[in-house]
Amino acid sequence: MGDKVKLIATPESLPCCRVEWALKLKGVDYEYIEEDLRNKSPLLLDSNPIHKKVPVLLHAGKPIVESLVILEYIEETWKDKYPLLSEDPHERAMARFWAKFGDEKCVVGAFGAAWLTEGEEKNKAIESAQESLAFLEKQIQGKKYFEGEQIGFLDLAVGWIPHWLKALEEVGEMKILDAGRFPLLHEWGQNFLEIPLIKESIPPREKVVDYFNVGISYMRSLAANTP
Amino acid sequence: MGDKVKLIATPESLPCCRVEWALKLKGVDYEYIEEDLRNKSPLLLDSNPIHKKVPVLLHAGKPIVESLVILEYIEETWKDKYPLLSEDPHERAMARFWAKFGDEKCVVGAFGAAWLTEGEEKNKAIESAQESLAFLEKQIQGKKYFEGEQIGFLDLAVGWIPHWLKALEEVGEMKILDAGRFPLLHEWGQNFLEIPLIKESIPPREKVVDYFNVGISYMRSLAANTP
Repeated sequence: MGDKVKLIATPESLPCCRVEWALKLKGVDYEYIEEDLRNKSPLLLDSNPIHKKVPVLLHAGKPIVESLVILEYIEETWKDKYPLLSEDPHERAMARFWAKFGDEKCVVGAFGAAWLTEGEEKNKAIESAQESLAFLEKQIQGKKYFEGEQIGFLDLAVGWIPHWLKALEEVGEMKILDAGRFPLLHEWGQNFLEIPLIKESIPPREKVVDYFNVGISYMRSLAANTP
Repeated sequence: MGDKVKLIATPESLPCCRVEWALKLKGVDYEYIEEDLRNKSPLLLDSNPIHKKVPVLLHAGKPIVESLVILEYIEETWKDKYPLLSEDPHERAMARFWAKFGDEKCVVGAFGAAWLTEGEEKNKAIESAQESLAFLEKQIQGKKYFEGEQIGFLDLAVGWIPHWLKALEEVGEMKILDAGRFPLLHEWGQNFLEIPLIKESIPPREKVVDYFNVGISYMRSLAANTP
């Protein structure tokens, strides 16, 4: 088994990209195992029997799941290369707090808005997602990246904003990340996507749109069939 | 300001107890500031403007929020005393994974079941909460505590089970933690509550029952008023 690193992932998934980016930043060699989510492999089901989801990092045969947990694992295992988190415990706590906030408020909020088809309820959901993003807009103030002069843990965690959120806006026929209202997040997103290592490992926009279209249609059909 | 440690908390809240337990295990001196959640203090609103919730740890004047983020902060700040997490990155990742699982699946599942009043839907919710707990039952197999020979991060994270879950069962008129189905969790819970440091800082059962009664009634009234 050795110390081999394998990543079970799908290219369109942001949580998977987070892990890829971290491995690349650390210069870790890994094997990419592409997963077909419509026909889950025995390897995935065996490695993540609880959630049956990607990404899964396999290191020396042991699985680690949940993308933010994997980022911490990568940081601690290859600690001498490219730090993802500050040395300062308070800054580390802030990065963890905002990463959780991004997932629980911003991602969930944006998906909620995309899922709704029209009307007052949709407008409210968009406004609510924007209120959450406004907190992140404040966080980036005075900094090039969330982690400072170079990208790190929090940048990878909220790295869905400049690319995935735009695809979601297209699918949900809505605008959330208004450049006028969020100039700093907008600029951060442009800088982030221009980093060669990031640029070379993001999926094409149309693939992400297809991926979201399938997910949103499925969520809508579930809701329509709920008694 | 100095390096003073203050904890803004309410005695009945499990997330607050997690933090208290960690501070006590580490032997950190702190000031306990009891918060009245019906009349939130300017200090709380100022320290946690986003979620406006307890616990908040103030260290040298800087706030840290979210109980699991605070536990990591405590571990990193007072790292030479009583380790809460293993040194091994894979074991650390597992502790983080199961803590998140406990909060997202077990706590949410148990509250969902308590909130429902009766019938098939309630039975299904109870069964679902039990299916989640069954994963934790497997985790404790062959160990005295989740973290091994002494309690640590994951024990504090799921420390709500032996005391709070029982109070929730009373409020929800249901049984989730069946000792016959979960003998290992049951035994772990008894061992956990017998640790003097834990025992001396858990709120009386009837106070937790009152606390949950207020919360569950409020959730039910909200649901009843949703158009």
